[in-house]
Amino acid sequence: MIDIISRQNPKFKKWQSLLASKGIRKEQQAIVSGEKLIREFLRQNPDDAREILLPQNSKPFTGSPAHAKSYRLPKALFDELDVIGTHQPLLVVQTPAPGAVTEGPPKGLELVCALSDPGNLGAVLRSAEAFGASRVILTQEACSPFLPKAIRASSGACFRVALAHTGPLKNFSAQPSLALDMDGSSLNGFKWPKNVYLILGEEGQGVPKELGAKKISIDMTGQTESLNAVVAASIALFSYRSTSQT
Amino acid sequence: MIDIISRQNPKFKKWQSLLASKGIRKEQQAIVSGEKLIREFLRQNPDDAREILLPQNSKPFTGSPAHAKSYRLPKALFDELDVIGTHQPLLVVQTPAPGAVTEGPPKGLELVCALSDPGNLGAVLRSAEAFGASRVILTQEACSPFLPKAIRASSGACFRVALAHTGPLKNFSAQPSLALDMDGSSLNGFKWPKNVYLILGEEGQGVPKELGAKKISIDMTGQTESLNAVVAASIALFSYRSTSQT
Repeated sequence: MIDIISRQNPKFKKWQSLLASKGIRKEQQAIVSGEKLIREFLRQNPDDAREILLPQNSKPFTGSPAHAKSYRLPKALFDELDVIGTHQPLLVVQTPAPGAVTEGPPKGLELVCALSDPGNLGAVLRSAEAFGASRVILTQEACSPFLPKAIRASSGACFRVALAHTGPLKNFSAQPSLALDMDGSSLNGFKWPKNVYLILGEEGQGVPKELGAKKISIDMTGQTESLNAVVAASIALFSYRSTSQT
Repeated sequence: MIDIISRQNPKFKKWQSLLASKGIRKEQQAIVSGEKLIREFLRQNPDDAREILLPQNSKPFTGSPAHAKSYRLPKALFDELDVIGTHQPLLVVQTPAPGAVTEGPPKGLELVCALSDPGNLGAVLRSAEAFGASRVILTQEACSPFLPKAIRASSGACFRVALAHTGPLKNFSAQPSLALDMDGSSLNGFKWPKNVYLILGEEGQGVPKELGAKKISIDMTGQTESLNAVVAASIALFSYRSTSQT
């Protein structure tokens, strides 16, 4: 067990950088919080565990692979990294390498996602896994799927769903593509293509018209303006899975 | 415009109490944050506006009804009440009086909800409105639907959906009732009764068997353990609305 006491320590600076999308991309590492998620990660991806971070005076963490070193931090430093507030050990992990977006038609349902709120992105990844999206393509606007809040909201799905990165949403014009919109064809009775891109724009912004995506719409009562972005995306994924099964 | 400078001021103490479910229930008041939601509230329920809270040095708030007094607070005190961090005026409002739960069969889809996280409860209220639930019955476990985070997540639906309060979830055995469960009848092809209670248990806990609710299930891929509570509830509401329309 190694004690880290200074904020200037390069290790600590690296961990701090993992609280923002930029640092996660640069280091290709992330911080997993919460005992359940950590145990699950160690079971599914033991080789990708890198470091265990412990609050001062805590017992050693049991069950971590031998190659993952343990570090102990004073409360103030530990709390800075424990942004979820679990007061439990944190696991630093190697993030999976994202796939490249290849030209050509989609295979199965591929989600194209520009969500920038980590709680939203994580929750959508959880639904994408649950309903069998074949891949999630993150546009430049999207936050990292490995931010602590995104990992937590995804319930670990961020480590299991196939991910890819692409440029700005406005350049994503591959077809066939669909976008949720208030004025689209109703999802009730909609016949989903087997292979299709489903585009989720940035929170509160919708999808640029220029992309040429066909609009689909979720029926609501008159007084409601719009649905929560995660809810809307999840209902579309559910609808895809329901109709492609029957 | 009245200046409030002391933390001991009874007005300030009342506003502080509106940051917790207990205080909201006692005062029957709540704090609305965010310019869009405030403008909407003033348009829909002008008589229920009570007080305007402004950060120091800010201009008077335009467009508030004459009966709503404005108060100005030092930054530290204002920030304590501005838990969402909007840095905009806050509106203190009278909350709608909850209806009583009457014995007898449900009318339309009535949601029985034990969610204790305000973000979750608010998001479910937004979906309940969107998909036409006739009422949301909050059990004793549920948090107040008028906590700042719940108001925000509901996008104001908390002020428009018919609400009622009841005792602990374990005592809610009215029928016919449905509950989401991993091992229930599939929602695909499920024939929704027109009048039914849909029970949402506490986060991560499910619905007690003793209530006798019929189980319904959302089909997922094998590797997923469960869905986000808001997503699961919203998909059930969407399914109800889709099948009751056709």
